[in-house]
Amino acid sequence: MATQGQVITCKAAVAYEPNKPLVIEDVQVAPPQAGEVRIKILFTALCHTDAYTWSGKDPEGLFPCILGHEAAGAVESVGEGVTEVQPGDHVIPCYQAECRECKFCKSGKTNLCGKVRSATGVGVMMNDRKSRFSVNGKPIYHFMGTSTFSQYTVVHDVSVAKIDPKAPLEKVCLLGCGVPTGLGAVWNTAKVEPGSNVAIFGLGTVGLAVAEGAKTAGATRIIGIDIDSKKYETAKKFGVNEFVNPKDHQKPIQEVIVDLTDGGVDYSFECIGNVSVMRAALECCHKGWGTSVIVGVAASGQEISTRPFQLVTGRVWKGTAFGGFKSRTQVPWLVEKYMNKEIKVDEYITHSMTLGEINKAFDLLHDGTCLRCVLSTSD
Amino acid sequence: MATQGQVITCKAAVAYEPNKPLVIEDVQVAPPQAGEVRIKILFTALCHTDAYTWSGKDPEGLFPCILGHEAAGAVESVGEGVTEVQPGDHVIPCYQAECRECKFCKSGKTNLCGKVRSATGVGVMMNDRKSRFSVNGKPIYHFMGTSTFSQYTVVHDVSVAKIDPKAPLEKVCLLGCGVPTGLGAVWNTAKVEPGSNVAIFGLGTVGLAVAEGAKTAGATRIIGIDIDSKKYETAKKFGVNEFVNPKDHQKPIQEVIVDLTDGGVDYSFECIGNVSVMRAALECCHKGWGTSVIVGVAASGQEISTRPFQLVTGRVWKGTAFGGFKSRTQVPWLVEKYMNKEIKVDEYITHSMTLGEINKAFDLLHDGTCLRCVLSTSD
Ligand SMILES: NC(=O)c1ccc[n+]([C@@H]2O[C@H](COP(=O)([O-])OP(=O)(O)OC[C@H]3O[C@@H](n4cnc5c(N)ncnc54)[C@H](O)[C@@H]3O)[C@@H](O)[C@H]2O)c1
Ligand SMILES: NC(=O)c1ccc[n+]([C@@H]2O[C@H](COP(=O)([O-])OP(=O)(O)OC[C@H]3O[C@@H](n4cnc5c(N)ncnc54)[C@H](O)[C@@H]3O)[C@@H](O)[C@H]2O)c1
Ligand SMILES: [Zn+2]
Ligand SMILES: [Zn+2]
Ligand SMILES: [Zn+2]
Ligand SMILES: [Zn+2]
Repeated sequence: MATQGQVITCKAAVAYEPNKPLVIEDVQVAPPQAGEVRIKILFTALCHTDAYTWSGKDPEGLFPCILGHEAAGAVESVGEGVTEVQPGDHVIPCYQAECRECKFCKSGKTNLCGKVRSATGVGVMMNDRKSRFSVNGKPIYHFMGTSTFSQYTVVHDVSVAKIDPKAPLEKVCLLGCGVPTGLGAVWNTAKVEPGSNVAIFGLGTVGLAVAEGAKTAGATRIIGIDIDSKKYETAKKFGVNEFVNPKDHQKPIQEVIVDLTDGGVDYSFECIGNVSVMRAALECCHKGWGTSVIVGVAASGQEISTRPFQLVTGRVWKGTAFGGFKSRTQVPWLVEKYMNKEIKVDEYITHSMTLGEINKAFDLLHDGTCLRCVLSTSD
Repeated sequence: MATQGQVITCKAAVAYEPNKPLVIEDVQVAPPQAGEVRIKILFTALCHTDAYTWSGKDPEGLFPCILGHEAAGAVESVGEGVTEVQPGDHVIPCYQAECRECKFCKSGKTNLCGKVRSATGVGVMMNDRKSRFSVNGKPIYHFMGTSTFSQYTVVHDVSVAKIDPKAPLEKVCLLGCGVPTGLGAVWNTAKVEPGSNVAIFGLGTVGLAVAEGAKTAGATRIIGIDIDSKKYETAKKFGVNEFVNPKDHQKPIQEVIVDLTDGGVDYSFECIGNVSVMRAALECCHKGWGTSVIVGVAASGQEISTRPFQLVTGRVWKGTAFGGFKSRTQVPWLVEKYMNKEIKVDEYITHSMTLGEINKAFDLLHDGTCLRCVLSTSD
């Protein structure tokens, strides 16, 4: 390719300051170094984690940066030593890496690879601990090791899932974050069995994916809980078959659910990021075995609490990151499941725009009618 | 038997008021009603739960009552419909019942039988919701459905484990609480695998039983943590092979353990009942998979807390009651294991006294040299 080994100048949405509109800029993207992959991003969706860092509430957020972590594209070029992908491959960038070599990857117990975290956590690449992005010579930080709000990005090779070239990228970009998180919370973290009762707090994309996961796992009662009653209509399509709006009740929501289920649910999922709801989600679990999974990401510094008696009497408190999926290994498998019509993806896409309209897309995140908004970057 | 169907007058230690010395009294013990068993208690040990209720800190504590829940004896007589034990059988009273019929027992997921809880929780028997104990006609409450600080007690049939008549009752009485709790926390609740690293907070009877359980489960590093360094010497015999005294360190104990274990332990156990230590026990677990089990019982009203990020990054928070053992089914099996020298019991008994010396025995609970003090009731 003509661009290989060259700096590429392309459009990207740069977050210069917290809470200030993103700026579409001409950004210089340096060629991939050893162990790196440069990707032409074709479609990217927005997720609440982008909005959280953009809002300035994330104490680890670094500015200026290029946000974005739910996307799909094609490999433009690869750095030295990269063997598993080559130019032209269709890929999904994965904020959760999978190196298959570190203590975490080898444990067989977790998807939380540690290989590149020390760099991705501070917005740079491992090789030289520098950024590949710049505007007029001034470096721009990477974000989550993905930075997909750009026509081109550079990621570590351990963060690239190679997928079926026949998969529609404008859809499967969603398999980079929210949908796998919800499905995996059920399948990998909770391991819901047939006949279970499930409570899902928050019916956004993540909560709906939990519902779908619970339905395919054979759960009987799938109770959706949201402060926005309009969410129930859509949620039905994903498997939710009962709905509770906490605002319709005087009693704490955990008591409402316990009463409704003769003692509590077998599994609950917090898909909001609210620490009081996390407590309610634990406490609405059945004594003896109920398991609660934290999926939502709370604001920095906030703490969860409960009486230890809740755990001593058999409840289990867990959490999940990217649904426990091993990214490079399992994202391609999720793409296959989508191609075989075994999991939904299209149904989460409520809006489509271009990268240039990204600030409008951010506004939509706070609008109850938006699940996922997919941006085309090649406008 | 001559006593069958009769009220028995015998000695018992009555707790008339919180924090006041127990009084050895002539107590009237009514005959067992339908579904009840009257037991001649031969040996009883003291546990911290007795001391907790006695201290007045337990808001559910009822006075006057007869405490005690770690004991062994022989069936004196049985009430109508009791088929699984008969007079003369050697038994261990079980504060955690097992009816084999309720939702909990049938779930296959928990040992927390719910059959008689509504009565044992308020110091009475199910049949008539009254006590079988009285002093001069004034009723004395039951405690934990066991009340073993008495020469005779009445319990529900679902709370009686029939054991091998050859087992020495002065030893196996310990299999009524502390030792199974520790072993089961490891075997049933955490399911520790060979090669694991384990941290045990608190090296009393429960913590030592956790150590023994971890050793038999094949754990490699068994780190004991106690603010009393003298505990290490004894703990070695139970499998503890490293020791940390939090007082020897400036850093929070969770950081000390994380540093010592290259990222944290695979399993941790809180065997004290201190909510800050419960947090430390969770936070010293390895990211991605570390599981912390709360075994200690905290004072009423206290809460545990942590950052949800601890769970989202893969740690699991659990608790255990009676180590997850199904009492009637598994206490006899533990007795067999003891008889086959597969588990320790004798080694926990540091003191022996008579029921008449019970106040002295309570004092010993706060003495670092005492693990279990066994009282003979037939003085
Ligand atoms: N653990 C992970 O790996 C991971 C991955 C992706 C997203 N997340 C997190 O998952 C959470 C959900 O993401 P999403 O995209 O579905 O968000 P969303 O905003 O679309 O959905 C949240 C839903 O919760 C509802 N809600 C808000 N407060 C509520 C309350 N008190 N009680 C009941 N319902 C309430 C809202 O009405 C909304 O429907 C976010 O915190 C996000 O950061 C976590
Ligand atoms: N979950 C259950 O079913 C169950 C059953 C039995 C007992 N328990 C509980 O288990 C706990 C332990 O019982 P035990 O009989 O072994 O008690 P114990 O008092 O003999 O042992 C506690 C140990 O913890 C140590 N300790 C105290 N504070 C500490 C701190 N801050 N850091 C480190 N070490 C500290 C003490 O020095 C002591 O060695 C109690 O809370 C008891 O109520 C629970
Ligand atoms: Zn996301
Ligand atoms: Zn790895
Ligand atoms: Zn006890
Ligand atoms: Zn039962």
